[in-house]
Amino acid sequence: MSDRVIEFFFDVGSPYTYLAATQVTAIEARTGVRVRHRPFLLGGVFKATGNTPPAQVASRGRWMVQDLGRWAAKYGVPFAIASRFPLNTLATQRVLAAAERTGGEAAVRALALPLFRAFWVEDRDVSSPAVLVEVANACGLDGTMLVESANAPETKELLRASTEEAVARGAFGAPSFFVGDQLFFGNDRIGHLEDLLASH
Amino acid sequence: MSDRVIEFFFDVGSPYTYLAATQVTAIEARTGVRVRHRPFLLGGVFKATGNTPPAQVASRGRWMVQDLGRWAAKYGVPFAIASRFPLNTLATQRVLAAAERTGGEAAVRALALPLFRAFWVEDRDVSSPAVLVEVANACGLDGTMLVESANAPETKELLRASTEEAVARGAFGAPSFFVGDQLFFGNDRIGHLEDLLASH
Repeated sequence: MSDRVIEFFFDVGSPYTYLAATQVTAIEARTGVRVRHRPFLLGGVFKATGNTPPAQVASRGRWMVQDLGRWAAKYGVPFAIASRFPLNTLATQRVLAAAERTGGEAAVRALALPLFRAFWVEDRDVSSPAVLVEVANACGLDGTMLVESANAPETKELLRASTEEAVARGAFGAPSFFVGDQLFFGNDRIGHLEDLLASH
Repeated sequence: MSDRVIEFFFDVGSPYTYLAATQVTAIEARTGVRVRHRPFLLGGVFKATGNTPPAQVASRGRWMVQDLGRWAAKYGVPFAIASRFPLNTLATQRVLAAAERTGGEAAVRALALPLFRAFWVEDRDVSSPAVLVEVANACGLDGTMLVESANAPETKELLRASTEEAVARGAFGAPSFFVGDQLFFGNDRIGHLEDLLASH
């Protein structure tokens, strides 16, 4: 089906979503299906669904640190627990929504992995306007324009609408992948997603 | 290492643990490492750690039904959401502890998958003494003796001690696999567990 697409709802503040983001190119290569990057606000998803961050349970948080390291090793990607985690990513996700509104999905895609890397590899404060401008500029985008556009009512509305759409379609956490009406929750369900695509 | 063992902490009331239980023989065949079945009480783990059942979030519960079906299809095992889920498995897990106390791990192992199947395939009430007696008898165990032994103080203490041990070692849910001090949480981390065993 030529209209097939994998929608990837992501928030830079989620470590498992960083891991998933590092796999996008490989997923597209294996499946031949395009991944569409869709920024949303994970905090808004938790609020709307009554879900809670998994690391809120102390022993689960300790296990997650090991588990994330195992995935990073398996993928062969760098990873370090961000010193600012959990971070309020409202400013970050709004800049991504501004990229979406002004430059379409190509701009979101250009910016997403560099922002994930800035947070989960370089331990930078990706909610800071100065960092956002610098990372966006390094991607060939107009960082100053994006940070300004992040506060436009249309940008706020876009991020809110994307978040509400994901929740309405069944999302309760991140990463959330959709193929049509099928939800695949978590970096660890990329295999199931590819099984579905291979079966059609 | 000849003393290597995979400890499998399980509760019959957990659907992902049923899926993991169907894979025990295959895990042993692939790794050459023995799996030791250790009944514990998932409700006690939740209480001790402050964790909550994942299906308590409504949209997560809906997704889980799909996700469990995908895993069952991948494994080629039958599965149906039990009409009594979530079930209070105290009686069930005490019978398994009675099997452990009176017949050792071999008796637990004989009983575990049949009890999982009775609940997650045949939709039977595995907390009922009559069902417990029947399933145990069908495994070649003395069902009446096990149901009586389930209420002995020593059995209650064994189940409590196993649950507390798992929590002390870092468990917060089920299934919980341990290789020494390494915890692998979830049916979906069997791959990581095998990676660890293969690396030594």
